[in-house]
Amino acid sequence: MVEEDLNQIGGNSNYNGEGGDPESNTLNQPLVKANRTLSSTPLALVGAKVSHIESLDYEINENDLFKHDWRKRSKAQVLQYVFLKWTLACLVGLFTGLIATLINLAVENIAGYKLLAVGHFLTQERYVTGLMVLVGANLGLTLVASVLCVCFAPTAAGPGIPEIKAYLNGVDTPNMFGATTMIVKIVGSIGAVAAGLDLGKEGPLVHIGSCIASLLGQGGTDNHRIKWRWLRYFNNDRDRRDLITCGSAAGVCAAFRSPVGGVLFALEEVATWWRSALLWRTFFSTAVVVVVLREFIEICNSGKCGLFGKGGLIMFDVSHVTYTYHVTDIIPVMLIGVIGGILGSLYNHLLHKVLRLYNLINEKGKIHKVLLSLTVSLFTSVCLYGLPFLAKCKPCDPSIDEICPTNGRSGNFKQFHCPKGYYNDLATLLLTTNDDAVRNLFSSNTPNEFGMGSLWIFFVLYCILGLFTFGIATPSGLFLPIILMGAAYGRMLGAAMGSYTSIDQGLYAVLGAAALMAGSMRMTVSLCVIFLELTNNLLLLPITMIVLLIAKTVGDSFNPSIYDIILHLKGLPFLEANPEPWMRNLTVGELGDAKPPVVTLQGVEKVSNIVDVLKNTTHNAFPVLDEAEVPQVGLATGATELHGLILRAHLVKVLKKRWFLTEKRRTEEWEVREKFPWDELAEREDNFDDVAITSAEMEMYVDLHPLTNTTPYTVMENMSVAKALVLFRQVGLRHLLIVPKIQASGMCPVVGILTRQDLRAYNILQAFPLLEKSKGGKTH
Amino acid sequence: MVEEDLNQIGGNSNYNGEGGDPESNTLNQPLVKANRTLSSTPLALVGAKVSHIESLDYEINENDLFKHDWRKRSKAQVLQYVFLKWTLACLVGLFTGLIATLINLAVENIAGYKLLAVGHFLTQERYVTGLMVLVGANLGLTLVASVLCVCFAPTAAGPGIPEIKAYLNGVDTPNMFGATTMIVKIVGSIGAVAAGLDLGKEGPLVHIGSCIASLLGQGGTDNHRIKWRWLRYFNNDRDRRDLITCGSAAGVCAAFRSPVGGVLFALEEVATWWRSALLWRTFFSTAVVVVVLREFIEICNSGKCGLFGKGGLIMFDVSHVTYTYHVTDIIPVMLIGVIGGILGSLYNHLLHKVLRLYNLINEKGKIHKVLLSLTVSLFTSVCLYGLPFLAKCKPCDPSIDEICPTNGRSGNFKQFHCPKGYYNDLATLLLTTNDDAVRNLFSSNTPNEFGMGSLWIFFVLYCILGLFTFGIATPSGLFLPIILMGAAYGRMLGAAMGSYTSIDQGLYAVLGAAALMAGSMRMTVSLCVIFLELTNNLLLLPITMIVLLIAKTVGDSFNPSIYDIILHLKGLPFLEANPEPWMRNLTVGELGDAKPPVVTLQGVEKVSNIVDVLKNTTHNAFPVLDEAEVPQVGLATGATELHGLILRAHLVKVLKKRWFLTEKRRTEEWEVREKFPWDELAEREDNFDDVAITSAEMEMYVDLHPLTNTTPYTVMENMSVAKALVLFRQVGLRHLLIVPKIQASGMCPVVGILTRQDLRAYNILQAFPLLEKSKGGKTH
Repeated sequence: MVEEDLNQIGGNSNYNGEGGDPESNTLNQPLVKANRTLSSTPLALVGAKVSHIESLDYEINENDLFKHDWRKRSKAQVLQYVFLKWTLACLVGLFTGLIATLINLAVENIAGYKLLAVGHFLTQERYVTGLMVLVGANLGLTLVASVLCVCFAPTAAGPGIPEIKAYLNGVDTPNMFGATTMIVKIVGSIGAVAAGLDLGKEGPLVHIGSCIASLLGQGGTDNHRIKWRWLRYFNNDRDRRDLITCGSAAGVCAAFRSPVGGVLFALEEVATWWRSALLWRTFFSTAVVVVVLREFIEICNSGKCGLFGKGGLIMFDVSHVTYTYHVTDIIPVMLIGVIGGILGSLYNHLLHKVLRLYNLINEKGKIHKVLLSLTVSLFTSVCLYGLPFLAKCKPCDPSIDEICPTNGRSGNFKQFHCPKGYYNDLATLLLTTNDDAVRNLFSSNTPNEFGMGSLWIFFVLYCILGLFTFGIATPSGLFLPIILMGAAYGRMLGAAMGSYTSIDQGLYAVLGAAALMAGSMRMTVSLCVIFLELTNNLLLLPITMIVLLIAKTVGDSFNPSIYDIILHLKGLPFLEANPEPWMRNLTVGELGDAKPPVVTLQGVEKVSNIVDVLKNTTHNAFPVLDEAEVPQVGLATGATELHGLILRAHLVKVLKKRWFLTEKRRTEEWEVREKFPWDELAEREDNFDDVAITSAEMEMYVDLHPLTNTTPYTVMENMSVAKALVLFRQVGLRHLLIVPKIQASGMCPVVGILTRQDLRAYNILQAFPLLEKSKGGKTH
Repeated sequence: MVEEDLNQIGGNSNYNGEGGDPESNTLNQPLVKANRTLSSTPLALVGAKVSHIESLDYEINENDLFKHDWRKRSKAQVLQYVFLKWTLACLVGLFTGLIATLINLAVENIAGYKLLAVGHFLTQERYVTGLMVLVGANLGLTLVASVLCVCFAPTAAGPGIPEIKAYLNGVDTPNMFGATTMIVKIVGSIGAVAAGLDLGKEGPLVHIGSCIASLLGQGGTDNHRIKWRWLRYFNNDRDRRDLITCGSAAGVCAAFRSPVGGVLFALEEVATWWRSALLWRTFFSTAVVVVVLREFIEICNSGKCGLFGKGGLIMFDVSHVTYTYHVTDIIPVMLIGVIGGILGSLYNHLLHKVLRLYNLINEKGKIHKVLLSLTVSLFTSVCLYGLPFLAKCKPCDPSIDEICPTNGRSGNFKQFHCPKGYYNDLATLLLTTNDDAVRNLFSSNTPNEFGMGSLWIFFVLYCILGLFTFGIATPSGLFLPIILMGAAYGRMLGAAMGSYTSIDQGLYAVLGAAALMAGSMRMTVSLCVIFLELTNNLLLLPITMIVLLIAKTVGDSFNPSIYDIILHLKGLPFLEANPEPWMRNLTVGELGDAKPPVVTLQGVEKVSNIVDVLKNTTHNAFPVLDEAEVPQVGLATGATELHGLILRAHLVKVLKKRWFLTEKRRTEEWEVREKFPWDELAEREDNFDDVAITSAEMEMYVDLHPLTNTTPYTVMENMSVAKALVLFRQVGLRHLLIVPKIQASGMCPVVGILTRQDLRAYNILQAFPLLEKSKGGKTH
């Protein structure tokens, strides 16, 4: 936010700092040198391999066919559409809730039985057998998760949130929302979390919610679709975008049981465009999720979910606890925020390095990826089992009602290798599921449950694991590792403060987790509401806000958020909401000049020309020009008219359908209508290789008018890049035409086309290094 | 929302319903006939009188001076700005919280002592004296509120929310956010609410919050400003917009003690543009409000707020109540929603009629306005006092802990004229403050407290009062009247359902209030969250959502929301988020042709021409053209270049400062810089009358280049109005230039300018009646 604020009022004081007279230089001379070109690569890292990515068409393609179509739609069809939209929102919530429950139950039961077995061997003092069982089970689970990910759906690795963010920003990444990805994500998530790895199921749940939304919207998998006519309304990028927004909100809600938080997460972190209507529909989805989760909690409370069903659904339930605090507590609270911000940005920095290293390993092949995962799993298991031996046995506090010591999974005070009446505090945190560890750290009125030494070991271990686990080839969420680290450091800070404050150590842990999340992910409002809904205590709101605000501000002064770092690392062309200050110094005309000249087509064009253009360029849209008559002026010579913009996909469709004219003439709309139904036109298709055109056909003509979008958005060439970017992002464009500021015969009415890639700060700085010196170290 | 959905996929099936071949007609022929003109009136009803309104400049005016300025800004200045922005957000919350507390305490104490006196006379059976006291006190309080409103600040009447909505949409209404308005609003609100009128303090609180924000942003009242240099950063429309958004969120939060609900209310209902950064800042404001309110509640709980301090702050506190419901309860819940939607839209319809009638009365002069208020007050007082005599005395239920019967203000079971051991249920609802009435209706586990007859009388009375109180010349909120009506009908429905459902009658009342609000105001998410924060029960979320969804859908099928009706009635040019379907059929070129030809200026222009243009037109901006050289084409004859757009305010400034050149030449930026500091340029000034120009000066020249915004947004003439509207609203424009699609010498590079007025559906339909037939009864 601070960054955004800086942009708003300009603020690059060091612009004039370099010798000479750079000010008049930048004002009066063009920044473009003839040999500079604006490069744009349509490649990005998707899953683990570099793939071709494409922009999405969120703009309404207002060609004659579209206009004809929507005039034709009946009231009944409109009602069908509205009804279906709400039904889909409901189904997204329903399925997300069900799958979240499934994952929770599976993880709890698998991990439960595993830990029970380990505990069994521990009580028999068969320590080596215990280690073998734990390591074996964890390796097996990791192997399943990792092999599935590596072989069947590389895009299922990681949290998926950066890719969803990019999708909603207008970048289509292939194989992101398919059925295989979803199934692998579900199974892999169960395996990885049950294996005790330091990763969460929250990020994957968001991705799963989005997959459900996408699959429902298109009526099934890519190969097996329901051919329900009603669903054809959703066969376009705009409606899919809305559905995926609903899905991501439902996923967050399922992860934290926080309906309002889920909506705000989608609004604040994930979505790029937002409308009131969407607010309401996402809220509907999250409400359905809450209902499903509540039903299952009731069922599980009556004992029908297996041995260990209860724990998973009641995540971090701290709502019945009353925390108190006083005005003097503001100083430790601010301290939590500052440390959280520093740690969070440090974590971002180091994770970036680790991910780069992992990329090198992953590039070596599938076996390496699986081996990497197994190594991390082995290390984790050994640490989880071995480190508790370092901790001293602590005597049970008889004043506490809970059973102490306990064996197996459930219960707060793990006996481990201690004698009766004693418990091992480190085992309580380590030999359990991550959810339980968080719950133990958040627990209040237990100031002496954990020793300082154990907390230190736990914190250091999870810092290491948090850095080295995230990049492995399994579904992995970032929320939980950060919450674990944050809760540990918060609790340590609380213990260190000791008698200075009256804040409970559990509250310190909660605030520490919030601070570290804000310091790393830089979310604020949604995080605040999620914590509000977790703690269910309005009184905590002000101090949570102070912590989040400070942590975010501190973090922002070091580096961007972790999702931005991942987006950048993967090369996804994400458009930021706020233009960089130096973008006001550059005009789109200068940007257009740095690109190859624009390729245009005639309104009625020869087939051979179209084939040439498709073969020799990679552009996805072409301006369509016509000769114009200007009766009122009288100077008709060389007058040209911009008719609009035609998409490559539509040109390919014309060639595939062989809709050629023998003579050069304009057609009527009804001639085309039958040939190109609108729902077919909305599909993306640009595989041009298998179209064979005879040489006779090459000499024929195509009338492009009916297929041309006659209302493309345009900017004048002296528009600043900053304002063009605002237009591009606010309206959700794919192509933006640059028109000349000069009116004269013989001039081309289009001087350039801007795409998402051209407006990215990173790409512009490659072509205009002069600007780089002025940017003040803002981009990474 | 349903309307919005309809727009998205088009959906005007009856478009082709009229004879002939309108389809090819609209496709191929221009809709514009030569004699049609697009009229736009800059007048609207502000307060009670017709005033001149102006659009706001949310676009960044990128002229040379602006560019120079922000290049010059130092890091320290940027930090000043950021720091101040947060400080102001905090202060907005602080003051809003304090004033909300003040209003609550004043209302509770004034109304408390008043009712205590009335109760005193009732127990002595001096009924006429009691009536006199009540009527006298209420008339006095109403008189104060009304006279203040009528004489000092007419804009303080009503809720103020529609005007805030319009402001954030880009319409500046004069005298809306001044100090006088705020003070009158505070005092008037206290008077009107304490007088027992059927109006709330919630709407006024939103307005007060916005006033505080505006006053803080400009550093004081219009006449007495703090000349603090830091504050100059906020002297522009963009920053004021952000502050007022914070203020409105703080107001809602203060009204309902719902921080998240307040933010979402601002997001959903009030604001037009929204950014992530704003989300966080508004949330900060509302958190501060919550802290202030909580502090005061603690102080009041320790008895330091006078006799009746407690009640006002703890509004509708139903959080400790546990409601239960079952799946079979879905039918009554849906019934509540349907009835709520019907009643809500009926209320909107009737209120519209009443407001039109009141307008006629109010036009007659100040005395009439005051008399109207007093009449309503008299009628209200007589009804409140007289109607309880119709109710039968009910015996106290000894199983309930509360004192029964009670006298005076506090207490649930009013004795009124009943014997000991009996209470009057209608007096419990009527002879109390509105807040207490709501609390009584919401109370649970009291199925027999209110008789059906009493509820009917209450409901009918408050329907009548709700219609006739809103339009009087006092500050009046719409929330409370609607909540009262809704709670009454909900409770009646609950009583009628009787044994059919297990839902508590208090819950019925809550849902009824929600349904009627959704049916009338058409808010959904914010309402849902406000009710969530009021009831503090996540379990209620699903049924609240169902009720709201149904009520809103039912209401939307009849008429627009009450705020939209008021906006339309007042003639405020509010731009809707979604274009009407028929807007895709019209191009901006056709729209431009229906307007008078565009008036342009030369880059270096004669003073006399500028004076002429300013005198003879009312436009607020003029395109600046230059002759162009086109070396690469060679056809320089008649080539013109669009340099940009200059604002009327800046032209007036040039004339006032007499910045004239003796010869026709272009100037350097440094020549202008001293003359026109940027913070002066941001101020609006267009009073041109007092500028006297000598005839010698008339022959001199002005170089408009440095003051021209070189980067205005443009659309091509074949752009559809629908897309132009999306651009206009999303980017937040004041002027949109239409450029020709044809490139030819001799053509003017600008064929028209669109403003907010030109893009309003209502105005377009006036000029293009053919479209009206196709619109399918969507606008009112």
